[in-house]
Amino acid sequence: MSAQAFTDFHDLLMLGPDGDEAAVAAVRARDAQLTKPAGSLGEMEFLVEHMARWQGKAEPTFEDPMVAIFAANHGVTDQGVSAFPREVTKQMVNNFTKGGAAISQICALHEINLRVFELALDVPTGDITVLPAMDERTCAATIAYGMEAIAGDVDFLCIGEMGIGNTTVAAAIYAALYGGTGADWVGRGTGVDDAGLVRKADAVDRALTRHAGRLKTPFEILANLGGREIAAMVGAIIATRHQKVPMIVDGFVATAAAAIAHAVNPASIDHCLFGHVSAEGGHARALEKIDAKPLLDLGMRLGEGSGAALAAVLCKTALHVHKNMATFAEAAVDEKLN
Amino acid sequence: MSAQAFTDFHDLLMLGPDGDEAAVAAVRARDAQLTKPAGSLGEMEFLVEHMARWQGKAEPTFEDPMVAIFAANHGVTDQGVSAFPREVTKQMVNNFTKGGAAISQICALHEINLRVFELALDVPTGDITVLPAMDERTCAATIAYGMEAIAGDVDFLCIGEMGIGNTTVAAAIYAALYGGTGADWVGRGTGVDDAGLVRKADAVDRALTRHAGRLKTPFEILANLGGREIAAMVGAIIATRHQKVPMIVDGFVATAAAAIAHAVNPASIDHCLFGHVSAEGGHARALEKIDAKPLLDLGMRLGEGSGAALAAVLCKTALHVHKNMATFAEAAVDEKLN
Repeated sequence: MSAQAFTDFHDLLMLGPDGDEAAVAAVRARDAQLTKPAGSLGEMEFLVEHMARWQGKAEPTFEDPMVAIFAANHGVTDQGVSAFPREVTKQMVNNFTKGGAAISQICALHEINLRVFELALDVPTGDITVLPAMDERTCAATIAYGMEAIAGDVDFLCIGEMGIGNTTVAAAIYAALYGGTGADWVGRGTGVDDAGLVRKADAVDRALTRHAGRLKTPFEILANLGGREIAAMVGAIIATRHQKVPMIVDGFVATAAAAIAHAVNPASIDHCLFGHVSAEGGHARALEKIDAKPLLDLGMRLGEGSGAALAAVLCKTALHVHKNMATFAEAAVDEKLN
Repeated sequence: MSAQAFTDFHDLLMLGPDGDEAAVAAVRARDAQLTKPAGSLGEMEFLVEHMARWQGKAEPTFEDPMVAIFAANHGVTDQGVSAFPREVTKQMVNNFTKGGAAISQICALHEINLRVFELALDVPTGDITVLPAMDERTCAATIAYGMEAIAGDVDFLCIGEMGIGNTTVAAAIYAALYGGTGADWVGRGTGVDDAGLVRKADAVDRALTRHAGRLKTPFEILANLGGREIAAMVGAIIATRHQKVPMIVDGFVATAAAAIAHAVNPASIDHCLFGHVSAEGGHARALEKIDAKPLLDLGMRLGEGSGAALAAVLCKTALHVHKNMATFAEAAVDEKLN
């Protein structure tokens, strides 16, 4: 597999704009006047700075936040790696849009837009234990499709996913990027039993063996091991950086997209926050590999962008507080002694 | 000091009603039907169960949530233990009610009621390095006052505080309950410098020496070391348990009230959640002493109930999701295989 199809994406990952430190300075200058001890809101202050830095706005906004869910199907489900049948991917896509899913209700309560991107659900990727997940052209087209996810007025993006079988795929990507066997990276996903867990580890090991020698670059890993939703999320990571949209990456599967981008250029994910650390065991280690500190640790393992969306509520709150608190002067509160 | 004035409170802490496990079972039965893998919302599922258990409602509510801020002043500020002048307590009380404080804006965004209880701000407690904080009668009256905090229709309470000097007082309480010196328990509070930190540790050590022999019971510790806001929060913890209101305890100072209750009867705080772990170093250790696991870890150290209120947003969200998600049957989503 040549890397020709991926040259543009490689360049975009290498050449993302820097953060706007003047905007950050403006946020800090206002923060210093607010009626609270300096630094006392901890990470909440950092979140506002992050939004300013990557939106390039001294007064960051959270007016058009969106959760983008990328949904795809996976041939590797033929190996019995999931507790749910493949049909559930499509059923849950319907459920997202009808408001019945957890992410639908998180978004509804907190006024965050929700959009679902279906990625050829009727055409699962190749079973990675015997085939490449995607050919180069399909993978590149899917990255490009993911870049469209933030077309419009989105000023804050969360990325999440739905895809029966995709924790197996993500585990394979982590093993290819960071070493280790299937057993090191797989977890129970939606709730496989002990036998299912063994099948997942075995599927990853067979995939690594099958594609050995064709996993030399991050894009090769992405194409051979898949899946479509992970490729599309790589595109979303690229596009948000270039279009100045700070983003939050969800859990175990979404982080695999960030890991691909990070493997090309660690700085390419500087505009990404990581919403939570999943109960899926490998997630904490994957986050360490990319130097990412998750905002929440609530034992969640749902996907759908749910952990990212909860973290987005923190961002929304942090910005609301920053914009609307009184200054010491406005409130006639004495400042710090000496 | 006799314990006579505290007999009733002692009994109330010993005799709080048990949780309603039938209500919890009802929540779990519904949860099992919702369109997500079992257990995949982690702590968010636990939060709904907690609300059901302590409200005694199979369908818990979050219709009248309130943040109660207890504000008090402290004679120990004469020892130079705070980075801010004592007048700031009153000024911040005004700021809370006018909407200028961080907690005001968190509550406004998320539709949580905010009420401030002023505790004789013009009459600081005794300087604990030389005097008891309160006499027995004052302490008992303040606990009783705190019990009134949830009069009305409150179905969910967060407790927080405002009181220049009160991290020194809380540190003294922890040292009295759990041992160690002032240096083991004090932190920078609102931001004291190195010299201020030494003064805080020294003030705690002198208070412990001054009141040695009069710190035999949790109530003696509370009365001698203070402060009024901590006593009132003990009352709030008692009242919420008996009136079936689940609550969230805020940070380093609020947890001192929970530690007093816990020292009387560890089960007396079973209805309490702990919103976050503060950047104030001693807080993590205090939480360990009472077997409490904080929901958030955001490096905050503001007080005002801010950490508790952010955790309340998680509770609100968890309940909204629980109530409004579709079941597998409603959404026509296939259930788990075998």
